[in-house]
Amino acid sequence: MTVGAKYHMTSEDFRRHGKALVDWIANYYDRIEEYPVLSQVKPGDVRAALPQTPPQHGEPFENMLRDFQNLILPGITHWQSPNFFAFFPANASGPAILGELLSAGLGVQGMLWATSPACTELETHVLDWLVEMLELPEKFKSSTRGGGVIQDTASSASLCALLAARERATGFQSNERGLYDHLVAYTSTQAHSSIEKAVKVAGIGKENLRLIEVDENYAMRPELLKYQIKADIAAGLTPCFVAATIGTTSSNGIDPVPEIGAICQQAGLWLHVDAAMSGTAALCPEFRYIQAGLEYADSYCFNPHKWMFTNFDCDCFFVADRAALIQTLSILPEYLRNQASESGAVIDYRDWHIPLGRRFRALKLWFVIRHYGVEGLQFHVRQHVALAQKFAQWVLDSEHFELAAPTPLNLVCFRNIQGDEFNRQLLEHLNRSGELYLTHTILDSKFTLRLCVGQTNTQARHVESAWQRIQTVANEMRIG
Amino acid sequence: MTVGAKYHMTSEDFRRHGKALVDWIANYYDRIEEYPVLSQVKPGDVRAALPQTPPQHGEPFENMLRDFQNLILPGITHWQSPNFFAFFPANASGPAILGELLSAGLGVQGMLWATSPACTELETHVLDWLVEMLELPEKFKSSTRGGGVIQDTASSASLCALLAARERATGFQSNERGLYDHLVAYTSTQAHSSIEKAVKVAGIGKENLRLIEVDENYAMRPELLKYQIKADIAAGLTPCFVAATIGTTSSNGIDPVPEIGAICQQAGLWLHVDAAMSGTAALCPEFRYIQAGLEYADSYCFNPHKWMFTNFDCDCFFVADRAALIQTLSILPEYLRNQASESGAVIDYRDWHIPLGRRFRALKLWFVIRHYGVEGLQFHVRQHVALAQKFAQWVLDSEHFELAAPTPLNLVCFRNIQGDEFNRQLLEHLNRSGELYLTHTILDSKFTLRLCVGQTNTQARHVESAWQRIQTVANEMRIG
Repeated sequence: MTVGAKYHMTSEDFRRHGKALVDWIANYYDRIEEYPVLSQVKPGDVRAALPQTPPQHGEPFENMLRDFQNLILPGITHWQSPNFFAFFPANASGPAILGELLSAGLGVQGMLWATSPACTELETHVLDWLVEMLELPEKFKSSTRGGGVIQDTASSASLCALLAARERATGFQSNERGLYDHLVAYTSTQAHSSIEKAVKVAGIGKENLRLIEVDENYAMRPELLKYQIKADIAAGLTPCFVAATIGTTSSNGIDPVPEIGAICQQAGLWLHVDAAMSGTAALCPEFRYIQAGLEYADSYCFNPHKWMFTNFDCDCFFVADRAALIQTLSILPEYLRNQASESGAVIDYRDWHIPLGRRFRALKLWFVIRHYGVEGLQFHVRQHVALAQKFAQWVLDSEHFELAAPTPLNLVCFRNIQGDEFNRQLLEHLNRSGELYLTHTILDSKFTLRLCVGQTNTQARHVESAWQRIQTVANEMRIG
Repeated sequence: MTVGAKYHMTSEDFRRHGKALVDWIANYYDRIEEYPVLSQVKPGDVRAALPQTPPQHGEPFENMLRDFQNLILPGITHWQSPNFFAFFPANASGPAILGELLSAGLGVQGMLWATSPACTELETHVLDWLVEMLELPEKFKSSTRGGGVIQDTASSASLCALLAARERATGFQSNERGLYDHLVAYTSTQAHSSIEKAVKVAGIGKENLRLIEVDENYAMRPELLKYQIKADIAAGLTPCFVAATIGTTSSNGIDPVPEIGAICQQAGLWLHVDAAMSGTAALCPEFRYIQAGLEYADSYCFNPHKWMFTNFDCDCFFVADRAALIQTLSILPEYLRNQASESGAVIDYRDWHIPLGRRFRALKLWFVIRHYGVEGLQFHVRQHVALAQKFAQWVLDSEHFELAAPTPLNLVCFRNIQGDEFNRQLLEHLNRSGELYLTHTILDSKFTLRLCVGQTNTQARHVESAWQRIQTVANEMRIG
């Protein structure tokens, strides 16, 4: 933005356009409920409106904003609408958006401590704060043999956990000579698809991922896990990794980590615990029971980018033994060597995940924690859980709907009693209306609606309207 | 930002703080040359200044900005300083920062077409534009069997390429039953460390990565590659993947892709071409020779976040056969099923990379291309290359310095003739001065300085000052 540097945006223009954009975003949130939550465009609509060929000459920023408004916005599904109840949330907030802006403005790389010390140290610091805020085991603090790192997603975190497990189980030899041991990994039938993806990526193979059956609450049955591990050992295989879930995507099922952990400890398996959305609940002491058994975990992750008001991407990944992770992912070409790294006194986060480069993501997390304070975060988590519980009670009290799974926190799984086809059409009607957005799953072989309360600005009136709308549409469908 | 929602940042406050932050960023760029490029803090300095425990109560945003300025900024290495010549650049620009801000404000997820159609379609569209802008082979366009996707980094892109190669070589069986074939991968001794990392992650093992020797220009010797592949086949192994580099990190060496490609075609190997930084040069017709042989490539990547004024992260990864990539990385849990995906009429980018969730990264790329236009981007690439060539000529003309490698584009590798220890100290003196930031490599067993011209605002005067400073410090060292 140096004045006079041809083609670059000038400092004055950056100020002008930046402020206009800040206002645009504020206006967007002020009016977000006017947009249909789920985009109504058809495949190809957006591309058809864009010029086929790239521009030869530069254009004024106003053109981009105009086209964004006219051509892109209709193709947006509004994840930040308070009427967004689909999937799990990916909620954002004012301080997080500003943190992301500041990070973009600085444009620094945190691959090594030396490439921007504050980028590394603030990350370590804020992740240590989170250990306290959530009352996680001390072993996840950087002052011990463990520590935390920000990854993009829980998918990547699970992959890193699996890789470290693979290496530990093979004496760090798979990295060297390739994967020739017959390793086996375990998770429940309800675990996130990223576990299967990680098992494929790591070369272990889907056939060697055992999907352990769940109980009536969609939680892993530890006795079956124990049995399967024994059988695999008896067959000459090498069990190496168990992924337990605190809050499955499908139904928010909570695996019995204490029992699973004891089994892992006895058999020497790496225990990874994925609490991608639900982990945030542990900000409140009354929900900390979900963390029972974490003392057994070798690694743990949760996503502030889901339910903790911190813009995507921000997955917090903690390990009890950082040396195992670092040994698994370490690379050291000459052009990255530097005194600070060689002194051993610093963390180089490049060795804690797959990519080399990394953004300054700790900034937004720092802003969020300081803006809300622990009490502000607790307030909203409690409110979301209370609203989901209220919704679950309405379902229970209704003669036309039923709950499909327990509702431990902020996800309600429910369905109309008139069967799969009715529920499928109900979902489509609701989402097409644009007034709210829900998604589905299959539980007990039945098509099931999911309503997750977690968007930053969702309040009682949004959940009440959702329930009204669901009842109204179901009634119309019955009559019509 | 709904008014009255306790603890959330209000719309008014967001506008106020957002505009203050926009001004802060503009001021930062206006004054960026006043900061020491390489942060001067010592390990632990930043953390020591931060409160040990997280805040119980929320704080005004002004506090965060104040602490950012006082505690964080001294720990920043200024990657956006025009005096940053280290590593490869990770350059940013006004339109890209604003694109990142808008993406953060929208907070949408692009894992499926359905979760925000515009997020997917704009990405496909802009990547198709890039195929034209760079004159890449048509097979990388989405209208063919291929297509492009934005990944975080070239490390992740190379990993995905390797995984697809692994699956193709094993009839897509490694994903299923694990990796038991004895696969072999190839790259040069000068390739980026991420290739070794990918080989480890994928379970192939470092021992099965052949590092092919290079010629005097640090380019892979194709006859040695051919010989090694033959030897491996003769030994009963299964060659599967070759990673060629256009512009190595160490010296900007350019592998002979036409020869390598012919070998790969004959042997049926997947050819991945990594042009992370140098790929941007192909915006200018006169530098497109670097893309010779890309017609053989199964996959290709370059990083607009390095040299194309687009904020990190933004790696563009192109494949000639998207079906192979998708089959390798596809997952389909019930809760992600939707009509658009099942119609086959849309792209779901979740199956093109490791993570599930994804930001709207195409926005910043769209803003950059439209703001600069092709001619604006060409202008700056040409200017950077011309400045590096000028610097190389000064080195050539100097009696105290020598070039350590060819300078095809914007990276100059050079050293003082007084040996390793002198150069090591020279580098340390220069970086400690805060006036510029260079890094090093080892070429021909000698400690070598690297100067890469690619930061957005680097102009003639910065490169001239760098050369003056380098000469002055070297003179002082010789005398003193």
